[in-house]
Amino acid sequence: MQKIDSSRVFQSAVICIIILSALTIGAKTYELPPLVERSLVLLDNGITIFFLLEILFRFAACPQKRRFFTDGWNIFDTIVVIGSLIPLDNAEAVLLGRLLRVFRVLRLVSVVPELRFLINSLLKAIPRMGYIAVLMFIIFYIYAAMGSMFFSKVNSELWGDVAISMLTLFRVATFEDWTDVMYQTMEFYPLSWIYYLTFIFLTAFVFLNMMIGAILEVMSEEKNAKETQAAHDEHDEIVQQLHSVQLKLDQLTDKLNLPKDS
Amino acid sequence: MQKIDSSRVFQSAVICIIILSALTIGAKTYELPPLVERSLVLLDNGITIFFLLEILFRFAACPQKRRFFTDGWNIFDTIVVIGSLIPLDNAEAVLLGRLLRVFRVLRLVSVVPELRFLINSLLKAIPRMGYIAVLMFIIFYIYAAMGSMFFSKVNSELWGDVAISMLTLFRVATFEDWTDVMYQTMEFYPLSWIYYLTFIFLTAFVFLNMMIGAILEVMSEEKNAKETQAAHDEHDEIVQQLHSVQLKLDQLTDKLNLPKDS
Amino acid sequence: MQKIDSSRVFQSAVICIIILSALTIGAKTYELPPLVERSLVLLDNGITIFFLLEILFRFAACPQKRRFFTDGWNIFDTIVVIGSLIPLDNAEAVLLGRLLRVFRVLRLVSVVPELRFLINSLLKAIPRMGYIAVLMFIIFYIYAAMGSMFFSKVNSELWGDVAISMLTLFRVATFEDWTDVMYQTMEFYPLSWIYYLTFIFLTAFVFLNMMIGAILEVMSEEKNAKETQAAHDEHDEIVQQLHSVQLKLDQLTDKLNLPKDS
Amino acid sequence: MQKIDSSRVFQSAVICIIILSALTIGAKTYELPPLVERSLVLLDNGITIFFLLEILFRFAACPQKRRFFTDGWNIFDTIVVIGSLIPLDNAEAVLLGRLLRVFRVLRLVSVVPELRFLINSLLKAIPRMGYIAVLMFIIFYIYAAMGSMFFSKVNSELWGDVAISMLTLFRVATFEDWTDVMYQTMEFYPLSWIYYLTFIFLTAFVFLNMMIGAILEVMSEEKNAKETQAAHDEHDEIVQQLHSVQLKLDQLTDKLNLPKDS
Repeated sequence: MQKIDSSRVFQSAVICIIILSALTIGAKTYELPPLVERSLVLLDNGITIFFLLEILFRFAACPQKRRFFTDGWNIFDTIVVIGSLIPLDNAEAVLLGRLLRVFRVLRLVSVVPELRFLINSLLKAIPRMGYIAVLMFIIFYIYAAMGSMFFSKVNSELWGDVAISMLTLFRVATFEDWTDVMYQTMEFYPLSWIYYLTFIFLTAFVFLNMMIGAILEVMSEEKNAKETQAAHDEHDEIVQQLHSVQLKLDQLTDKLNLPKDS
Repeated sequence: MQKIDSSRVFQSAVICIIILSALTIGAKTYELPPLVERSLVLLDNGITIFFLLEILFRFAACPQKRRFFTDGWNIFDTIVVIGSLIPLDNAEAVLLGRLLRVFRVLRLVSVVPELRFLINSLLKAIPRMGYIAVLMFIIFYIYAAMGSMFFSKVNSELWGDVAISMLTLFRVATFEDWTDVMYQTMEFYPLSWIYYLTFIFLTAFVFLNMMIGAILEVMSEEKNAKETQAAHDEHDEIVQQLHSVQLKLDQLTDKLNLPKDS
Repeated sequence: MQKIDSSRVFQSAVICIIILSALTIGAKTYELPPLVERSLVLLDNGITIFFLLEILFRFAACPQKRRFFTDGWNIFDTIVVIGSLIPLDNAEAVLLGRLLRVFRVLRLVSVVPELRFLINSLLKAIPRMGYIAVLMFIIFYIYAAMGSMFFSKVNSELWGDVAISMLTLFRVATFEDWTDVMYQTMEFYPLSWIYYLTFIFLTAFVFLNMMIGAILEVMSEEKNAKETQAAHDEHDEIVQQLHSVQLKLDQLTDKLNLPKDS
Repeated sequence: MQKIDSSRVFQSAVICIIILSALTIGAKTYELPPLVERSLVLLDNGITIFFLLEILFRFAACPQKRRFFTDGWNIFDTIVVIGSLIPLDNAEAVLLGRLLRVFRVLRLVSVVPELRFLINSLLKAIPRMGYIAVLMFIIFYIYAAMGSMFFSKVNSELWGDVAISMLTLFRVATFEDWTDVMYQTMEFYPLSWIYYLTFIFLTAFVFLNMMIGAILEVMSEEKNAKETQAAHDEHDEIVQQLHSVQLKLDQLTDKLNLPKDS
């Protein structure tokens, strides 16, 4: 069973079914004739059953049942499959059901090893950005508090409260029509350009340093692991050989019955 | 013939004709007096004949006729030249003919070795981005499916089906008036800012990591090839010399008729 | 007292109070029922007193009273705390008081060591960008002077004087509706696209080189400090061992009563 | 005289006058009372005379008169100073004169050594980008020719001829309202989104690779120059010492009157 599970043919079949599932999800967003729509529902049910059988098969093929659920990808697969099984009646629930089916596409990541590796390496990059994210949030919060304090009278849709202000500031940080926002507040506070420019410089500066930091950190990790090890190995080889040269010299000196230097 | 083919004068002449060809293509986009337009047609025919002769000459100069068509650049040149020879009568075909003539400008890349080298190195960078592109597509597809599910009633021009939604999401990813799109859906779904912000963070995060990955990969390749080789060579030289020192010590010990240490 | 000051529990309590303080600042930007507003004022007074006690406690716990005020973070904390104590009566002063309270959020940076370390490393990055900033300012100034010279008649709101022109150019540098600005001036000066394109290329080019420079500088610093030191140490070890081999050979030669080569 | 020329006081005085000159240029963009305007003209004349004297003094202080004009910065300074001396009568000429005075600000670069060094290092980065720029131009030209072929009927202001199309494409490359341009052409050619997306991907891809290439090139240069040299020196020292060890062994063998191994 394990052989079948890890066979190329089985893997390819699963990938094909996932892509088919993704296509049916996409097809449902178009207006379709009733016949096609009904066959899509049948296809959808077929895919649901296939996924159920596949996960049961994989569970059966797993030598240690307990370890099956310690792998995050397996848990994710199980939730997505079980979620599709819940019968849905009213309109609200149908939308929820369709939403769950969308996440089936993510199963592509859990099945293709290269994508799984990619996601894992991306997840590893998150903690590295943790404190930078906190700092960014503090900058946004302070500016948002200041913004809603001064500009809420100018435009309550953009600066009404601290949450709306943070959304507006995110817009400013993406340079999206930020001058429109600025020109509006400059009519009341002519010096408010200082607010926007300092905010843009601060966020850009912190972001730039984060990027540089990320490049450096990954780079030094990568290198220290591989290259430095190689350099150490080569160095150790030379030192060992030198030791053997010294040993031979010592023995030569001993054999000549000459007193060694103290 | 090979001498002529690879001579500086011949190469420069070909480059000049290609640039002339590019200029006639550009000139045709302006409204011109009939006389100039007619002379442009003549010039265009002349260039077509020159390109035909040039490719025949290059084919004749090629020592192995079979290898001529294994080079992608030669195939590209041949197609562009043959494409210009097809006689065009109706208006539709004329447009197609002009389109084919535009690609003549690309012959500049196939003729100038530095540009050919640049393109080759760019092509080499593509596979490295393969799985990241797949991941990006999955992210876009999932968000597009969700978008057209919820927002198609809000604005069917932006969220009508999964294809249109992907185009809209690409627009959001380039920060192009993305707040207009968001404010519109926020009127119906006040929490839809979560959709946009998570999408922007995800794509920006994946893109950033792709860039960092690309820099690192190219860097380690570059270095491993050159520097590490140099370091290995130097190390090998030292090890060889140490061996010769040990050999000499052994011989010295032997010659003194002293028993070697076992 | 120092023990309490550096204890995990105390630190966590301070962080919680700062976050609470940040939340009250955020809450005040919403319209609230009078009861909540009054309790917020009470809470605010409580936080002010807590901060006052905390800074007095930290001052008391500090072994050298003079060194307390040489640390920039302590000075910052003291100013923020004292600023909150000043009684405020009229409307203008209330706004100023609220503004000062906003900066309490920054105390999070001064309390969490990781954030303090991050800020310090960001501050270190500033001098490195000094001359690039001067160069950027010169480029902006020259283009702004030229812009207000030629375009002030076209649109005095965008090009009225050198200061407004610099703001407009910053907008162009962020690509924010820069074509609207360009199309307007192109009606009067059809060649003014040269002005915008050269400006965009210059600023983008200088910015790109600044970024590359920053990456390289930090990288070489990082490496020179660690790796090169390691390489030197390894090299020194080999040289030392070779010296000892030579010494032993010399002694061997001496002991054999053989004349050394001059 | 050379002493005075390179003295700190003289350098600072020149920098101050240049900054004063920049301020008068900026001041002229504001509407000023006649008295201030007249005193600005006087100040401007004074600065012109100072610059003339300064350049004559520097020329006199230069030990080799011929080498003075081989330095690009000196030629630049001379042109700017002489340009300010030409008397200007009519309105057109006055604008030209003011334009020339703007470039006086650039003298700051020629006077401050750090800025001069920065500019020189930026200039060095240009050739490295040469062929990438040619490739970018080819991409822009091909897409512009195609754009004006198909879209000139849709909107002649954006796609009228190949030159206007290139400007429009530059706008698309900066993501500035590019969807407005796309939606307009998509009404006539529903598949024209392919045109825009391929263009954006191509330019972004080439640009990204150019940036990565630039980082790598500068990095390897920097390193090869310094670090590799150090590694070579250390290696040479070890090899030399090993040679001396072998020499001593040979001599020891010779002195023992033992036949060397052939």
